[in-house]
Amino acid sequence: MTERIKRFQEFVSTKSIYFPSAEIYFDNHAGFYEYGPIGNKIRLNIIDFWRKEIVQKNDFLEISGSMILPKSVFEASGHLKKFDDPIATCSKCKQVFKLDKLLSEITSQEIHENLTIEDYEKKIKENNITCPLCKNNLEKITRFNLMAPINIGATEGAVAYLRGETCQSIFIDFLRIYKTSRRTLPIGVCQHGKVYRNEISPRNGLLRCREFEQLECELFFNPKDIDSVDLSNILNNKIRFKLLKDTEEKEYSVKELIDQNIVCGKLLIYYLDILQKFLLDLGFSLENMRFRETSDEEKAFYSKQTFDLEILSNNTWIELFSFNYRTDYDLTSHSKGSKKDLSIVEDGNKFTPHVLEVASIGLDRLFYLILENNFKIKEINQEQRNILSLKPKISPYFVAVLPLVKKDGLLEKSQEIYEFLKKENLFEVFFDEKGSIGKRYARLDEIGCNYCITIDHQTIEDETVTLRDRDTFEQKRVSIKELKEKLFCFYNF
Amino acid sequence: MTERIKRFQEFVSTKSIYFPSAEIYFDNHAGFYEYGPIGNKIRLNIIDFWRKEIVQKNDFLEISGSMILPKSVFEASGHLKKFDDPIATCSKCKQVFKLDKLLSEITSQEIHENLTIEDYEKKIKENNITCPLCKNNLEKITRFNLMAPINIGATEGAVAYLRGETCQSIFIDFLRIYKTSRRTLPIGVCQHGKVYRNEISPRNGLLRCREFEQLECELFFNPKDIDSVDLSNILNNKIRFKLLKDTEEKEYSVKELIDQNIVCGKLLIYYLDILQKFLLDLGFSLENMRFRETSDEEKAFYSKQTFDLEILSNNTWIELFSFNYRTDYDLTSHSKGSKKDLSIVEDGNKFTPHVLEVASIGLDRLFYLILENNFKIKEINQEQRNILSLKPKISPYFVAVLPLVKKDGLLEKSQEIYEFLKKENLFEVFFDEKGSIGKRYARLDEIGCNYCITIDHQTIEDETVTLRDRDTFEQKRVSIKELKEKLFCFYNF
Repeated sequence: MTERIKRFQEFVSTKSIYFPSAEIYFDNHAGFYEYGPIGNKIRLNIIDFWRKEIVQKNDFLEISGSMILPKSVFEASGHLKKFDDPIATCSKCKQVFKLDKLLSEITSQEIHENLTIEDYEKKIKENNITCPLCKNNLEKITRFNLMAPINIGATEGAVAYLRGETCQSIFIDFLRIYKTSRRTLPIGVCQHGKVYRNEISPRNGLLRCREFEQLECELFFNPKDIDSVDLSNILNNKIRFKLLKDTEEKEYSVKELIDQNIVCGKLLIYYLDILQKFLLDLGFSLENMRFRETSDEEKAFYSKQTFDLEILSNNTWIELFSFNYRTDYDLTSHSKGSKKDLSIVEDGNKFTPHVLEVASIGLDRLFYLILENNFKIKEINQEQRNILSLKPKISPYFVAVLPLVKKDGLLEKSQEIYEFLKKENLFEVFFDEKGSIGKRYARLDEIGCNYCITIDHQTIEDETVTLRDRDTFEQKRVSIKELKEKLFCFYNF
Repeated sequence: MTERIKRFQEFVSTKSIYFPSAEIYFDNHAGFYEYGPIGNKIRLNIIDFWRKEIVQKNDFLEISGSMILPKSVFEASGHLKKFDDPIATCSKCKQVFKLDKLLSEITSQEIHENLTIEDYEKKIKENNITCPLCKNNLEKITRFNLMAPINIGATEGAVAYLRGETCQSIFIDFLRIYKTSRRTLPIGVCQHGKVYRNEISPRNGLLRCREFEQLECELFFNPKDIDSVDLSNILNNKIRFKLLKDTEEKEYSVKELIDQNIVCGKLLIYYLDILQKFLLDLGFSLENMRFRETSDEEKAFYSKQTFDLEILSNNTWIELFSFNYRTDYDLTSHSKGSKKDLSIVEDGNKFTPHVLEVASIGLDRLFYLILENNFKIKEINQEQRNILSLKPKISPYFVAVLPLVKKDGLLEKSQEIYEFLKKENLFEVFFDEKGSIGKRYARLDEIGCNYCITIDHQTIEDETVTLRDRDTFEQKRVSIKELKEKLFCFYNF
C-alpha cells in the first residue's frame, strides 16, 4: 500500500467519513458500512449532482421502487439462475472462496466470473491451486447465487427477494410510466436506491459491499431510431476508450467513432459523451478513466455491446459501471414472465422498445473513487498536509466562515456574515471558531472545503474579508458586498 | 368512502403518483409500493424540505447506515423480543389477523397492541369473536415478530435482520460520531432510509406498508440540561394538544405548558414548537393536527413521556410519528449488549446521554397525508376540477411555461423563457405545449404546479407574460424582466 493510500484510510477512519456497521458489536458483519456526517454530506451531494446532471438535464424520469420484489420478477429476469459467482470450499478449514478472484490472484491471469464449472476445475488442476489459508484441497466447486430470499407475511411460502440491482423495477414499471408520461420514445427512466448482493467475500471497503446503493439510468428507444440523433455539434469531442483492438487507452473523436463503426449506434455515442463529461465534472481526470470494450466471453449474454467504465485507483482499474446495450431482452423476458404484453404502438407500429443501460453506477464505489482520486498530500513548511480536492458541488462545505479571534467583535461580525451567506441556501456554509486559524485551515482543507473566509480586525474597519482558496492557498481581500455573488459564481463555475 | 377520497385515489392511480410494486405479476405482494415520476418528485422535495428545516436549521448531524444489521443489535435493542403484533389464526380458513385491529373494529373500542395474550383471549371470549371471513373459531393467539431475518454469506448461521426502524444505527454509532464531531451535547443525529416490517395485514395503501422510509431525528443531551433552554422568545407560541386530562383538542401556549408542568422539560417544548411549525410549513392546517398524549398502557415501556403527532385524514386521526423521551434506555441497552462503555465525559462528569426521539417520521405516510390533506375539488363552469394545493417547495413543478399556440414565434419565445428560468436551478420548471391552454392549466393544477406562465402574442410586442396562480386562478401581466425575481420571492415565501 502506498503512503498516500495509508494516509487516506487513516483520514477516512479518524474523520468517520465511513466506517463498518455495528462495529461496537463482535459479530462478523463484513460488507456493511455507515456514512458519518461528513461522508454523508458528500454522498448526498453526489446523488444531487447525478440528479441534476443526468436526470434533469437529459429530461429523464425518475421513479422510486421497492427493494423487495416477488420471486417471479427475478425468475423472469434470470437473476435466480444467473446472478451468481463461482465458489470453492476448502475441504479442511471450510473457508469459501470466490473462484475467479482466487484464480486471478494466484495465476496472475485475468479469469472471468462466467466460465463453466468444468473450466474452473480444469484451471484448479492445471495450476495446482489449494486453499490459500491452510493449503488443503478445494472442493464443492459450484456457483453461488447472490440473491437474498426473504419470507413475507405470517404464513409460509410467499418468498420474495432483496433486489440485486435497481433496474428491474424500471423494466416492470415501464409500460405504466410510458402510458402516463404523455411522451414518445426515447424515454429515460432513472432510479436511486439500495440493493443487496450476498457476496462471498466482501472486501476493499466500499468497493465490494453486500448492501450498497445504485444510481440507475435506463433509456428506452425504438430500435429503428438508434442512429436518429444529431451529433454534428459534438463531432470533435473526444472520448477515452480501451478497445479490444487497441493495446492501450486511446481517445477517439465522435467522428472517428462513427466513421470506424466502433459503437453500434449514434444514440450510444451521444450518451458516452455525456457520461464522460459527467465524470470529469465529478472530479476525475481524463487519464484516470476509460470505456473498456468487453469481450464476448465477459459481457452479459443479452448485451449487444458493453463498455465498462473504469477508473484508475491506486494503480488498478476499477469498474464503476457498465454501459450496456441490452436490446429487448428485459421487456421480452418480463412480458413472458408476467404474460402481459409490454410492447407499445408508435406511429402505427407495434414493437418492443430496446433498452440502453446508460449507467448503473454503484454509488458507494463512486464515492470511494472520487475521494481517493482527489486525496492529495501537500508539503507545507516541512509538514505533510492532507487536501481533499473536491469540486464545489461535491464538497461537504463549499465555504467556511472563520473569525480570526473571538474578541473585539470579530465573533459577532463573523456570525452575521455566516447568516447572510446561509440565507438563500445557495451553497453549504460552515462556521468554525475553535482553535488557531492555521489548524482550522488544515482541518477544512482535509475535508474538502473549497473556500475559507476569515474575519479580522481590518474587516471591522473596511468591510472586507480574506477569501482563501483550498487548492492554491491563495488569499485575496474581498469586500463583503461582493462576497455572495463572487462565491455563487465560483460555485456554479 | 367520500366522493373526494374516491377522486383522490383515482387521481393517484391515473397519474401513477404511486402504485403497487410488481403489479404486472400475479404474486400477492401486498404492502409494497413504487413512486412514479411525479410522485417521486414530491417525495424528493419532502425529503429535501426535512433536511433543510429539521437537519440543517437545527444544526443536526446526518448519517446513513445499513438497512441490514446483525442479530446482536436487535437482541440488545429488544426488537427480537418486543417488536411484535398480537395475532390469531382462523382454525378453518387459516387466515391470520392482527388482533388489536380486529378487536377494535368489531367491538368499536380502542384496543391497544400491547396487551397480554391472556387479555386478548379474554376479550375474544367476552365478545364472542370469530373469523370475520368464515365465522369459525380463532386459534393460535400469539405474538408475531415483525423483524425479517436474512442469512449473510455462503455459510449457514450468520443471521442478520432488516431493520424495523432507522434509529438503532444512530444509537450504536453515537459514540464514534460524538468523538469525531468536536462538539458538546446536545447533539442531534438524523437519518433517512428504508426500513422493513413484516406486517400481518398491510393495508390502506401507503399508510401501512411493509417496506417504507423513515426520516429520523434523535437528540442526545445531558439529563441535567433538560430545562437549560431559553424559551423566552416563544412563550406565546401555541401548540395544539390532545391531553389525557382534556376531552378534546386544545391549544396551549408555551408559557402554559411550562406553568402547568404538562411536558417534562423545556427542551421537549422547544422541539414540539419546531415540529408544529415544520408541519404547518409542509401544508397541514392546525386544526388537522394534534400532539396526543399517550397513556401509560399505550406508550413504549422505556419512554418517560410520549406524544403521538396525529393528522386528521378522511375523518380519522392517523399517527404520523411519536415524540418520545427515551431517557438512557438505548445507550444503556447497547452498552450492555456490546460490552462497550457508551457513556461520555463532559465538564468532568461521566454520564450516559439521554435521548429525545424528536421525530421518527414515516415518509410514505407523510407523503400520503400531505397529498390527501391538500387535494381539493373545485367547481368551475359546472365542471369538477382536481386541485393539489401543495406548497412551493413540495410541489413537483413550481412553475410551468406554456406557449398559447405553437406558431408565430411563441414556441421559440417560450423555450427561451423556459431555459432562462431553469438556468440556476432555483426551482423546478416544466414546459408544456401539448393540448389547449385550458386543458394544460387543468393538468398542472391537478399535479400541484404553483404557477403557470403563458406566452401569447402580446409577449412578442411588449415582453410581458401572464402569471397564473393555481389556487386563486388569478392571472396577472408581468414583465419578463421581473419574472425570475418575482417567482424566486414567491418560492421562498
